[in-house]
Amino acid sequence: MNVLHNFNNDFEISMSKGMLIRGRFEHGLSELMEKINASIGFDNKMARQDIQCSITHVGMLERQEIISHGVAEKIRVGLTQVAKELEAGTFPFSTALEDIHMNVESRLKEIIGPEAGYLQTARSRNDQVATDFRLWVRDAHDVVIGLLGELIGALVAKADQYAGALMPGYTHMQAAQPVTFGHHLLAYAEMFSRDYSRFADSRKRLNESPLGAAALAGTSFPIDREWAAQQLHFDSPMRNSLDAVSDRDFAVEYLAAATLCMTHLSRLSEEIVLWMCPQFGFVTLSDQWTTGSSIMPQKRNPDAAELIRGKTGRVMGAHTGLVTVMKGLSLTFSKDMQEDKEGMFDAAETLELCVAAMTGMLTDLRANEEAMSAAASKGYSTATDLADWLVRVLELPFREAHHITGQIVQCAERDGVELDRLPLTTLQSVDSRITSAVYEVLSVESSVNSRTSFGGTAPTEVRKQVVYWKARLANLANTN
Amino acid sequence: MNVLHNFNNDFEISMSKGMLIRGRFEHGLSELMEKINASIGFDNKMARQDIQCSITHVGMLERQEIISHGVAEKIRVGLTQVAKELEAGTFPFSTALEDIHMNVESRLKEIIGPEAGYLQTARSRNDQVATDFRLWVRDAHDVVIGLLGELIGALVAKADQYAGALMPGYTHMQAAQPVTFGHHLLAYAEMFSRDYSRFADSRKRLNESPLGAAALAGTSFPIDREWAAQQLHFDSPMRNSLDAVSDRDFAVEYLAAATLCMTHLSRLSEEIVLWMCPQFGFVTLSDQWTTGSSIMPQKRNPDAAELIRGKTGRVMGAHTGLVTVMKGLSLTFSKDMQEDKEGMFDAAETLELCVAAMTGMLTDLRANEEAMSAAASKGYSTATDLADWLVRVLELPFREAHHITGQIVQCAERDGVELDRLPLTTLQSVDSRITSAVYEVLSVESSVNSRTSFGGTAPTEVRKQVVYWKARLANLANTN
Amino acid sequence: MNVLHNFNNDFEISMSKGMLIRGRFEHGLSELMEKINASIGFDNKMARQDIQCSITHVGMLERQEIISHGVAEKIRVGLTQVAKELEAGTFPFSTALEDIHMNVESRLKEIIGPEAGYLQTARSRNDQVATDFRLWVRDAHDVVIGLLGELIGALVAKADQYAGALMPGYTHMQAAQPVTFGHHLLAYAEMFSRDYSRFADSRKRLNESPLGAAALAGTSFPIDREWAAQQLHFDSPMRNSLDAVSDRDFAVEYLAAATLCMTHLSRLSEEIVLWMCPQFGFVTLSDQWTTGSSIMPQKRNPDAAELIRGKTGRVMGAHTGLVTVMKGLSLTFSKDMQEDKEGMFDAAETLELCVAAMTGMLTDLRANEEAMSAAASKGYSTATDLADWLVRVLELPFREAHHITGQIVQCAERDGVELDRLPLTTLQSVDSRITSAVYEVLSVESSVNSRTSFGGTAPTEVRKQVVYWKARLANLANTN
Amino acid sequence: MNVLHNFNNDFEISMSKGMLIRGRFEHGLSELMEKINASIGFDNKMARQDIQCSITHVGMLERQEIISHGVAEKIRVGLTQVAKELEAGTFPFSTALEDIHMNVESRLKEIIGPEAGYLQTARSRNDQVATDFRLWVRDAHDVVIGLLGELIGALVAKADQYAGALMPGYTHMQAAQPVTFGHHLLAYAEMFSRDYSRFADSRKRLNESPLGAAALAGTSFPIDREWAAQQLHFDSPMRNSLDAVSDRDFAVEYLAAATLCMTHLSRLSEEIVLWMCPQFGFVTLSDQWTTGSSIMPQKRNPDAAELIRGKTGRVMGAHTGLVTVMKGLSLTFSKDMQEDKEGMFDAAETLELCVAAMTGMLTDLRANEEAMSAAASKGYSTATDLADWLVRVLELPFREAHHITGQIVQCAERDGVELDRLPLTTLQSVDSRITSAVYEVLSVESSVNSRTSFGGTAPTEVRKQVVYWKARLANLANTN
Repeated sequence: MNVLHNFNNDFEISMSKGMLIRGRFEHGLSELMEKINASIGFDNKMARQDIQCSITHVGMLERQEIISHGVAEKIRVGLTQVAKELEAGTFPFSTALEDIHMNVESRLKEIIGPEAGYLQTARSRNDQVATDFRLWVRDAHDVVIGLLGELIGALVAKADQYAGALMPGYTHMQAAQPVTFGHHLLAYAEMFSRDYSRFADSRKRLNESPLGAAALAGTSFPIDREWAAQQLHFDSPMRNSLDAVSDRDFAVEYLAAATLCMTHLSRLSEEIVLWMCPQFGFVTLSDQWTTGSSIMPQKRNPDAAELIRGKTGRVMGAHTGLVTVMKGLSLTFSKDMQEDKEGMFDAAETLELCVAAMTGMLTDLRANEEAMSAAASKGYSTATDLADWLVRVLELPFREAHHITGQIVQCAERDGVELDRLPLTTLQSVDSRITSAVYEVLSVESSVNSRTSFGGTAPTEVRKQVVYWKARLANLANTN
Repeated sequence: MNVLHNFNNDFEISMSKGMLIRGRFEHGLSELMEKINASIGFDNKMARQDIQCSITHVGMLERQEIISHGVAEKIRVGLTQVAKELEAGTFPFSTALEDIHMNVESRLKEIIGPEAGYLQTARSRNDQVATDFRLWVRDAHDVVIGLLGELIGALVAKADQYAGALMPGYTHMQAAQPVTFGHHLLAYAEMFSRDYSRFADSRKRLNESPLGAAALAGTSFPIDREWAAQQLHFDSPMRNSLDAVSDRDFAVEYLAAATLCMTHLSRLSEEIVLWMCPQFGFVTLSDQWTTGSSIMPQKRNPDAAELIRGKTGRVMGAHTGLVTVMKGLSLTFSKDMQEDKEGMFDAAETLELCVAAMTGMLTDLRANEEAMSAAASKGYSTATDLADWLVRVLELPFREAHHITGQIVQCAERDGVELDRLPLTTLQSVDSRITSAVYEVLSVESSVNSRTSFGGTAPTEVRKQVVYWKARLANLANTN
Repeated sequence: MNVLHNFNNDFEISMSKGMLIRGRFEHGLSELMEKINASIGFDNKMARQDIQCSITHVGMLERQEIISHGVAEKIRVGLTQVAKELEAGTFPFSTALEDIHMNVESRLKEIIGPEAGYLQTARSRNDQVATDFRLWVRDAHDVVIGLLGELIGALVAKADQYAGALMPGYTHMQAAQPVTFGHHLLAYAEMFSRDYSRFADSRKRLNESPLGAAALAGTSFPIDREWAAQQLHFDSPMRNSLDAVSDRDFAVEYLAAATLCMTHLSRLSEEIVLWMCPQFGFVTLSDQWTTGSSIMPQKRNPDAAELIRGKTGRVMGAHTGLVTVMKGLSLTFSKDMQEDKEGMFDAAETLELCVAAMTGMLTDLRANEEAMSAAASKGYSTATDLADWLVRVLELPFREAHHITGQIVQCAERDGVELDRLPLTTLQSVDSRITSAVYEVLSVESSVNSRTSFGGTAPTEVRKQVVYWKARLANLANTN
Repeated sequence: MNVLHNFNNDFEISMSKGMLIRGRFEHGLSELMEKINASIGFDNKMARQDIQCSITHVGMLERQEIISHGVAEKIRVGLTQVAKELEAGTFPFSTALEDIHMNVESRLKEIIGPEAGYLQTARSRNDQVATDFRLWVRDAHDVVIGLLGELIGALVAKADQYAGALMPGYTHMQAAQPVTFGHHLLAYAEMFSRDYSRFADSRKRLNESPLGAAALAGTSFPIDREWAAQQLHFDSPMRNSLDAVSDRDFAVEYLAAATLCMTHLSRLSEEIVLWMCPQFGFVTLSDQWTTGSSIMPQKRNPDAAELIRGKTGRVMGAHTGLVTVMKGLSLTFSKDMQEDKEGMFDAAETLELCVAAMTGMLTDLRANEEAMSAAASKGYSTATDLADWLVRVLELPFREAHHITGQIVQCAERDGVELDRLPLTTLQSVDSRITSAVYEVLSVESSVNSRTSFGGTAPTEVRKQVVYWKARLANLANTN
């Protein structure tokens, strides 16, 4: 429906330039005001949270004897029916009623009559919106926290599989030292676990209840904010009613954490795109995670990786956007703040989709170990090992060892061979103290195996980290 | 439908934490890939442009004798039917067909059979998308250019009405010198006319045709890009086929211009919000442009102004987002670039709505001239006029005149009167050369009337500017 | 020196258009490369951290018997001398040596000879830079955490002083309900305490040591990363060497927290600017925190508040900038990441200056209680209290009570009086059930006093919050 | 000096936690205010523009007989001496005098005595700052326009050299069709010429003079704004004095154009980094444009390309920052606007450095034609040519031709050969209508040569474009 409406709209405005300009706004002024003002088109996403909030509020009013049991029960029954209608898709949404809160209240009145009017006792739309939105954003935290756990799980599983698979380690996109693919993947486990922890911290900070702040000043009714907060699984009520209705930190903080998480996803996506490129050929994705071309069946476009990389901009834009909205706003509520929702909703959906898609892609991905290993062996990538040997065995200062290594690499370059193929005589022509024992450190395998410092790339170390991660993930699963 | 679907979706995920996490993605992997990949949900907005592009392309193929007249005619007839179905809302959209281009082509094939396959001769989806999107963004330029013309018109009309109405001129939100409300409004006419000119420049720059770049390298078919460009009202074909499919400058440039335009709208919105605040009370908006409260009927919330101010963040976010998408992308097309559309579509709709709403609000706005004039008279706002008199008549260096004025203002502050109420003896006690002629410059009216330098606030100058603007707007209307 | 150099440079380029274009770059190519590559101009700020890191590293090498005690001692003595030279301002910086790390190492060699070359054993510039920068950013966390504590202290002190001072509570910049100034100020204490907690969380997350990651793969030397981490007061070494050298999350997270903190500062600044505006006149700042004009001595421009508000953009820009740098970067180190520092340094200095300036401004600020209270009494601001009375005493549904209140406010508007001046007969003409008891809730004072819900604006509640905050601040001071 | 001061500062704050927090701000309040308020640390860059503006203003005052010839001459002589002192580096800057304007005026007074006070007649710091800054930004436009011309020249020269050099054309980083390196480089010429044109448009729009707007309202002195504007090479005076002092559009527009230009630079940088990567090996940069490693002499890190790519974030951040500053600012001047300069200065220096460095790098760059050509021949990159042949010669609908081509590519994949090595019998087994004539289109060379559509990749077309560009550049050089 939506699709066609847009088409018609656009089609008409092309008729003539005059038409075109007026086209989209040839309504009366009040229509424009309605159009810019209405939020039902997006805040309907908070329907569930709105009912959750109202049922709690009614319970509190009854408990504090602000309304009678009979009225409370009637409202609860009505709200339950509204919830069912929403769930069943039969709820009669009305854009004239501006937002989800008015839609629900109005429907409640249709169902139970004027006693619906007791629902708003000791509550204002300001604390209601603040509570609903906070609940929504809390749910979004829970969803992404769960999805990040799965993504880390997928990384750890692949790291386990490829703990010993050689690949070039890059700096400046130049091969520097050999590493293992498992080690490389675990670097991302670290990043996503920081994201996990960031969302967990943010969730803790948001988990205070604005309900009961009323319009902005609190209320003279003998409400129990503590009880209501508990019912909604908040840690406590917010301590300042003005702050309660004007705070949107929780959304900004989610968006900041989401932006950083997208940055990590974008780095991994960039690498997948490169590794899929024919010049690399390091990994393969199945048909499920690539698109092809009817004409070039060998082509496997890593669309999902590209899209994830691209969507970083969108999430970052949502963060930038909301900060700009809040900047310089005087207290308490200004209508500008209605702009908090669409960016937040879109960013949460985007992030969830991207994390889930990355998990799927990683699970699907196969390494071409031969190609990776071949690349790792090129480019004198064990030169540092040679220098370290000079320091360790010949006890040279590191800078002197560097210098000698440089000369040896020049010999290798001149002779067109890798370091482990240089004859001992050549090595000794540069420094006569070098012995044949040096060959033990010149192969790519021995290089990788020797990096046994904590967190290093030696397969033994990588496997220790895999064990660590499996335990940690198991622990997470238990506490959730 | 959309609304309910969202509700259900969200509702289900609340059942349990486990559910919640899986809830949104318990589909097979391929579903996730389809979901992240499909663009039909938004690129259907380009349906009109897609058909426009295809009809041109078919005409060119026929003209160059690449396809026969018969086939061309058949395709044209088919496309016309597709257009009618889209307009009538009967077009059978399919999300499985991923994007608008495949939807249209597939429907064409249903209508006219396998000869639909000739349509894609010497064309690729890459140059097709680039052309469609460019046409859409060009239309967006035309719409906003028209709307800005109307907004300037509304400002000029109000400036005409209030060319002589006094108000305080502020720096640092401190009253500095009196100005006229008409003069103040024309400052915004300047800003929006720069926006107008910025969009006009951007439109010129985008008005080159990518059609014929094919996948990226051009084509071996004897196509006529020049003719196709003319048919689509482009100034010329783009000169480099790689650039043609990888360029999104036109969208970035629109978004940059839109961001700056929103900044201007936000400044005017901020002022309207302040002027409506009870402490100012400078202007009134009718019920059409304010929302009230059933309980406080005196309250007139300037929602539209607040929303416009808030929406600045959203448009700026779209700009930031697209730049981030494009940053560091190697040539030519990467799927990241599919992220160009949603932000652009949303920003264009937002900007158009805001410009139109501002036009409506300004037309509706009434100045409370008394309150404005009273505010203008306070705070020794003619002190600069006194200093200028000392320079002009007594021929003092400006810095000395400043010093004397400072002393006189201190006397006025001490005595609790405005400058034009200080007795001559007091003035002369500060500097004996002062004569009674000075009183001619001390009233707010004379201050304003004296600022006759080009572009100054004197009502005579403001009226000259109104004449200038009316002529310019009339000229614009003629050339459009 | 710097200043003049810039001037000369710019002056010359104005000579002619040709000159102008070449002017800034008429150096050989290598000069350009040197100019774009050098970081000593800004990374000298990390001199202290670099020496701290090196002294720890040498200690570890000695302890692990990788270098001898004699060499270690020599290096330590040398580094101590370097530190003294830096402190005394006699250190001979060289831009040819590109960065701070090379400057220090080169000077060390001058002082102690070739044994300086042992310093880089089992360390690379990659883990060294990562460690130094992390130490710097950790210090920046500590500084801002301390400053935020002081800012909250200043807010609480003022809130204590003005716990009962009436002012209008605004929504949409329209007076809604009366509140107290103390309550309003404590809303900011909440915001800044969330900032405090955000920086504390971020500090915990960053507090892992990259030292020992070497170039990227770890090392074959038997180093003790755990011990080195402890010496540098890190909680533990980082678990993945690739992540250790490629991670800049800690800077992004600082910048995100700083951006949100600046947003809070900008909201308070906006309010101070408004409150200082003659139309409000709610507060006064002394000469120390305002600038004047020699000609208009009554003018008190709140420059510091304006500058703080403006600097929000700068910090947000630094965040946006760094995210854009990191987006899509493949592992591990790329030179792009050198762009992490300047924005970070500038943002930290800016934030620290703004928090400190806000603390100073708040301490200086005096409320004009009379003006605030008068404003609070206007605009039927107790209408909600009337409605609540109807609900509580007459037991009407809230929506019905709203309706009646609306009619009464219209009467007041018609008669030009505030609600507490309306005769009982008028009230009863709207609803006959109203009794004279209603007057108890119609004054601004009684309204404010009645909002005793937790977190409400009643002075009793505000004072409870002040007690809470004082205890919390005392607790903070003890634990630091 | 600066460097050491920072060090000392930082060093001291590390002494203890208490110290650390107070360290940076243990000055009196007024010091903090001075620190946040002073701009001389950066606005000294506008010294030349300030004197240019003042000399023009004095000339106008004399011409209009507002000041005498004698006084004017005295001021001119004084300002000339100030200019010389600035140029010679002997000007005594004072931070107590806050900004460059006060520094210059104060020095003038020292030189010529109290008649210096006439300089500020009919001028305010507001229009003076606006004029100086506009002149600075105009110069920045001129510089970057010149540098872009040189960059395009470098691209065209390389494109000329490599007009026929084969390379793979990529979509999704997957090889799609062969193109020529010259064609690829000219895509960037298109981008940078749009940047050129964007800066030219922006320069036109900014070229109006704010001088004479005075504080904000104009002046009562009989000034001649038109004459002053001409002297400063402005097209005209600005039409509205309020707009003149509150407009910063010209800086925002420069920053938006700079951001887009940086995006283009970042795309080319990304490609250079990739092409330098051992997996590609497409190009070589000399030692002048790479950094190495003493230990791995084969390593050529493309630092400049990486830095340019990274600096995109910084320029974009400056744009985001300034928009955020301006958003929602009421008219006219607010101190927030002092934040316009540092970001602008830094962005201009960054952009100029990056454009010049890219020009240098490109000039230095050599293509490894063999490696490029080999890569172009792989991956069935002429499959589209085969399909086009089927359409053109066998007159099949394109979609059917696609299908057949797909089957043939599968045969090639199965047999492990490229398309031009498949025997005719294999081709005919898929479609018997295929003749040996098809081989004419299956080689990479013939594919490239056949793309002769306007803007296509055929060397003949590329050379035509080179001719076009050379003429255009020659034309530019003449008109400058």
